[in-house]
Amino acid sequence: MSQVNRRIVLAARPHGEPNASHFRLEEGRVPTPQEGEVLLRNRYLSLDPYMRRRMSAAKSYAAPVAIGDTMVGATVAEVVASHHPDHPVGETVVGFGGWQDFALSDGKGLRRLDPAAAPVTTALGVLGMPGMTAYTGLLNIGRPKPGETVVVAAAAGPVGSLVGQIAKLKGARAVGIAGGPEKCAYLTGELGFDAAIDHRSDSFADDLAAACPQGIDVYFENVGGAVFDAVLPLLNDFARLPVCGLVSGYSATELPPGPDRIPVLMRAVLSKRLHLQGFIVWDFAAQEAAFLEEVGGWLREGRIRHREDIIDGLENAPDAFAGLLKGRNFGKLIVKLA
Amino acid sequence: MSQVNRRIVLAARPHGEPNASHFRLEEGRVPTPQEGEVLLRNRYLSLDPYMRRRMSAAKSYAAPVAIGDTMVGATVAEVVASHHPDHPVGETVVGFGGWQDFALSDGKGLRRLDPAAAPVTTALGVLGMPGMTAYTGLLNIGRPKPGETVVVAAAAGPVGSLVGQIAKLKGARAVGIAGGPEKCAYLTGELGFDAAIDHRSDSFADDLAAACPQGIDVYFENVGGAVFDAVLPLLNDFARLPVCGLVSGYSATELPPGPDRIPVLMRAVLSKRLHLQGFIVWDFAAQEAAFLEEVGGWLREGRIRHREDIIDGLENAPDAFAGLLKGRNFGKLIVKLA
Repeated sequence: MSQVNRRIVLAARPHGEPNASHFRLEEGRVPTPQEGEVLLRNRYLSLDPYMRRRMSAAKSYAAPVAIGDTMVGATVAEVVASHHPDHPVGETVVGFGGWQDFALSDGKGLRRLDPAAAPVTTALGVLGMPGMTAYTGLLNIGRPKPGETVVVAAAAGPVGSLVGQIAKLKGARAVGIAGGPEKCAYLTGELGFDAAIDHRSDSFADDLAAACPQGIDVYFENVGGAVFDAVLPLLNDFARLPVCGLVSGYSATELPPGPDRIPVLMRAVLSKRLHLQGFIVWDFAAQEAAFLEEVGGWLREGRIRHREDIIDGLENAPDAFAGLLKGRNFGKLIVKLA
Repeated sequence: MSQVNRRIVLAARPHGEPNASHFRLEEGRVPTPQEGEVLLRNRYLSLDPYMRRRMSAAKSYAAPVAIGDTMVGATVAEVVASHHPDHPVGETVVGFGGWQDFALSDGKGLRRLDPAAAPVTTALGVLGMPGMTAYTGLLNIGRPKPGETVVVAAAAGPVGSLVGQIAKLKGARAVGIAGGPEKCAYLTGELGFDAAIDHRSDSFADDLAAACPQGIDVYFENVGGAVFDAVLPLLNDFARLPVCGLVSGYSATELPPGPDRIPVLMRAVLSKRLHLQGFIVWDFAAQEAAFLEEVGGWLREGRIRHREDIIDGLENAPDAFAGLLKGRNFGKLIVKLA
């Protein structure tokens, strides 16, 4: 291996929205796998909102990326050298290869892909972490019942689009929130959502209320902020709120002005008997096989659809990631590596 | 029946803390039961924090008491006239007789008491709504595991004291929060709590942290406000918060000053995978028999203790109720009717 390994490292912790200055492209030698390791050639890199939180020093469910370290991320990769009995050269896998051309792995967290069964990029989206996030959060915490109303934001994204489609498969009404008329048209026209609301509209809160005449029974929370404020008064008694992400606040540099509305939220929790529960997909790791079987089946049968937004070149990942946090992508954002 | 029925009605909705001016003692004729009804002579009236919310016009899980209507409340009563086949004259029952000497009932919500089995006042406390609130909220939502830390405020009250004692029976550590050294001594000295923290102390938040060296796994929320603020940073991953009451805010006339900390709370929900769930005891009505059997058994076996604070005279109910909201009572607050 005389090739160069290009990698994107965290250059500085952003205060506010991340931009190119917070990343640095470095070049180094391709590492050599030791006994029990494989060398991965990353082919596709997944960009996901959680990465913004890893760029911060704040404590969360996972340790922050250190300054100078390679940015973390899921990749679809090819095994190009192997000293691991389970992963021969030539195998295609999904794992956590990070923002770089090559990565070493001891096999932990690698999953073999069958390129004949589904396009390999689906392992980063509808059949990967985002899809499993939607599936486990909605079914374990949201538990939609037939006839109930399920609301999800970022609904044209890989998590939200599956939340709405699974809600429909379970007999519920699906109301999606997205940015702009094109994404809204996609939700109702292609994905079968019952209604789609543009959060950029001045009448957003009224539009949402009009789309939920029976109130909201499940709100899949992945954005927070103004969307949550509009949802809160519409929640029905015994509504369930899987709290999956709060992307609108990931780059916030200060709290919103007062008054302090924690008492408003807690009174709603009490009066309406709300169920709020935070989760990350790995809390439900034991359900991965069930997820792959059920969602894989729906995908093969054409009962669910998905969309990918694939950009070219590792060097473009920082800008694409900044756009992701602003909703610039349309579909699962993936970087195709050279 | 030539007797007079004295009743306390809601005279005005309080803005802030309730006082005598919000109630009015009225006298009227004792009503006559029709076919299918019984006449109850109330003997004991339960005073509970939830009544403050019924005095407000704000929407909640139950309709507000109308101005001029008799205040609602649970009572232990004697059947003094009956046209109901299930409830003969002389029977002692617990029901919703309200703040008055006499009440009519169609039998709905009445439960026969056996005065030989337990003192009848327990049907308003440890074996009544407060006890069942503690039992159902802790076991269904809190789900304490052996070795975990359970924190409850208003811990010398009828709900909190049972929460802590059941937590101990389930093998968890119990940390109680109460107002003043006398109540704190009662928690550790008589009820077996592992620690008791005085929320009136200037060092309250530090004291609580010191009493929870392994963090908090279950926080049974019945007060809100400053106690919740002290609890939030101590919560462990996957902590459960049964939200039962928010008494510190029931008389608040405005929200606390900013910034708006909803994002702080929601980030904690997400990062720590918290489970917040509001409930009222009747959500678990189907568990009443199990509650009576299990807690009744613990009481007979001396494995749990309880304390009552009984005051005399319907006319003293308003003042006693105002004191309840300030933590002036010590034990389950009950009014003995003449």
